[in-house]
Amino acid sequence: MISDLENIWSRSSRSLKRSVIRELLKLTARPEVISFAGGLPSPDTFPKEDLKQVMMEMMDQESNFVLQYGTTEGDMILRKRLVEKQYRTIEGMDITVDNLVIVTASQQALDLIGKIFIDPGDKIIVGAPSYLGGLSAFRTYGADMVGVELDDEGMDPVKLEQTLAEMKAQGTRPKFMYIIPDFQNPTGITMPEERRIKILEIAKKYDVLILEDSPYREIRFEGQHQKTFFSLDNTGHVITIGTFSKILCPGLRIGWVIADKRIIDKIVMAKQAADLCTSPLTQRIAARFLEKEKMNELLSSTVAMYKEKRDIMIEAFEKHMPEGVSWVKPQGGLFLFLTLPEHMDSETLFMKAIEKNVAYVIGSAFYAKEGGLNKMRINFSYASKEDIREGVRRLAEVIRENM
Amino acid sequence: MISDLENIWSRSSRSLKRSVIRELLKLTARPEVISFAGGLPSPDTFPKEDLKQVMMEMMDQESNFVLQYGTTEGDMILRKRLVEKQYRTIEGMDITVDNLVIVTASQQALDLIGKIFIDPGDKIIVGAPSYLGGLSAFRTYGADMVGVELDDEGMDPVKLEQTLAEMKAQGTRPKFMYIIPDFQNPTGITMPEERRIKILEIAKKYDVLILEDSPYREIRFEGQHQKTFFSLDNTGHVITIGTFSKILCPGLRIGWVIADKRIIDKIVMAKQAADLCTSPLTQRIAARFLEKEKMNELLSSTVAMYKEKRDIMIEAFEKHMPEGVSWVKPQGGLFLFLTLPEHMDSETLFMKAIEKNVAYVIGSAFYAKEGGLNKMRINFSYASKEDIREGVRRLAEVIRENM
Repeated sequence: MISDLENIWSRSSRSLKRSVIRELLKLTARPEVISFAGGLPSPDTFPKEDLKQVMMEMMDQESNFVLQYGTTEGDMILRKRLVEKQYRTIEGMDITVDNLVIVTASQQALDLIGKIFIDPGDKIIVGAPSYLGGLSAFRTYGADMVGVELDDEGMDPVKLEQTLAEMKAQGTRPKFMYIIPDFQNPTGITMPEERRIKILEIAKKYDVLILEDSPYREIRFEGQHQKTFFSLDNTGHVITIGTFSKILCPGLRIGWVIADKRIIDKIVMAKQAADLCTSPLTQRIAARFLEKEKMNELLSSTVAMYKEKRDIMIEAFEKHMPEGVSWVKPQGGLFLFLTLPEHMDSETLFMKAIEKNVAYVIGSAFYAKEGGLNKMRINFSYASKEDIREGVRRLAEVIRENM
Repeated sequence: MISDLENIWSRSSRSLKRSVIRELLKLTARPEVISFAGGLPSPDTFPKEDLKQVMMEMMDQESNFVLQYGTTEGDMILRKRLVEKQYRTIEGMDITVDNLVIVTASQQALDLIGKIFIDPGDKIIVGAPSYLGGLSAFRTYGADMVGVELDDEGMDPVKLEQTLAEMKAQGTRPKFMYIIPDFQNPTGITMPEERRIKILEIAKKYDVLILEDSPYREIRFEGQHQKTFFSLDNTGHVITIGTFSKILCPGLRIGWVIADKRIIDKIVMAKQAADLCTSPLTQRIAARFLEKEKMNELLSSTVAMYKEKRDIMIEAFEKHMPEGVSWVKPQGGLFLFLTLPEHMDSETLFMKAIEKNVAYVIGSAFYAKEGGLNKMRINFSYASKEDIREGVRRLAEVIRENM
């Protein structure tokens, strides 16, 4: 071993410390803990029989292809399917396969987008709060992330415009703004169409790209699908990320980026140096599964399952939570934010919760800088119905005892 | 679309241009071209029936696990298997699972190692020539790559020491040296043990880590296995990369990094931001395949197949190649370097070769700076035996006509 390992880390990796969150989350894995902390979909939503069938047929008919290296752009059958059956038709997005690259799930999308745009010190607009995975990807490239508060419809346009105007006055401009408009991870908030149009106007006025991350917009319990930022724009001002992790299963590690062709080209070149190609095997499994036209049925049952869990959770909140605690009732997705009275701190509360065998993610994890001390992200997709009821009871007890 | 996309790329992505090599390689995909350009293993080496069997059993017994998110460190069964059945026992490496992380194949290993060590301008020692994938990964992070010539036993220790001494005199030190010691991609050269010991001494003298990349050391046709740098050191001075891409199949996208625990920890943190986890599905396929104890049999048949192809190729060289052309006869692997007379340029020759329906990779692609103009990398694993004979005939004709 060299004499001074600690001196040769890159600047960005010096900032990679064992994060508080990682350490806290390890505690949530104890079997007796009812965890609302993870972002895991329920295994009950995995179409195991169908996927097994797909795999067997695939190995009989196209094993030479799926076991070999693939192209960096991704499986053409999968790309065409997404473009033609999903994005052009259902979402009204004016794209071709040249606008879509397959990546090794959303996290790689965030990493590569960070890589192609961000130099150390570059400003990125994010929600306060925002998705932790996005924050860590951008932080890796030395981004200076500027949080814009959310109200109950998502990113606040007045505060956004203020922020951008201040930056402009200082002669800077963010590389992009990162928005999770559908049942946001972590808050559960959905940005309605009017607000999206307003945000898009501001983005165009200040000449700033929008990065739209929508991992599970199909998992809607009630209300109307809101058009994607991408389709409201259709001029290449928006980069959209999607994934199969929550609507099919995470184990395939498949996501995609949709953007202007020049951006896709850069992502492809960056991806080639990052991992050459996403597994052709898992991509073809996804493609052949889609071709069986079972996705709609799967989504219906996933939606029903998560809706029921959400309802059970909200009921349990109403039954057990003390006065002063509030929560978002999300229209879809897997997550919601619980807000404690302002004087409380979800980080100090965490160990007390673990002692009572219940867990969540501390709110401050989702803020680029300060914020969220009295908030917690709660996941309702994973725990069983009984565990949801019991877990909420325990959590409410912890909160009450520490108010 | 914003008004000035070309102005907002990060510095590292400005340097990602449509590379000459990428463009040339597209031409090699035409069906009538006999291509010695790719690095593809032969699909005849893929154990399709066994893998299908493994997948079926896996989906019957552990589908909830493989379809879910996995840990960033990777599949524990796979990690233990590699550590206990391969690296501790066969390779004599003093490691535990804490020293091994699974990554999304070798390319991700190179990317993450680049990410955790390299700041723009940092020096990296590489072979002249070296593996293109390594060069592009390190280039992404702004490395200043310094090439050290190879002789017929690999990196030249005298030139290496000269280079390091010069750097030291200028007050700099490379972050690591990147070495591909077994049937090197691209040259096919194997570094014998004595040379490895010498290089290791120099690395320790100048306090520089060694990054050892050995993607297919089991694919040996003749001669003795040479101990890994890692096992010759066993003090954490070496980082070793491995992969299943050439010894099992590329489509699973599985590789691993073995290093001092502190380095593994940084890689895990960087990987979490890069893609969260490698597919648990493809990792478990690999693990269960290994447990069937079929790997040795597979390797035997792969070795026999590639040895035969190498022999056919060398025979064809001897039969057709004009005076003044030389080549490496590799002891294993998938590649060899062909050297043309010094006045010739394999890049200008390339289009003429394409016109005659034969392809290779131009030598200069494998040099961090200048070099390799009269060299070409030839792959012998992929083409059929008939195509190898015919392809070499065509290539020799092109060379002769342009001498």
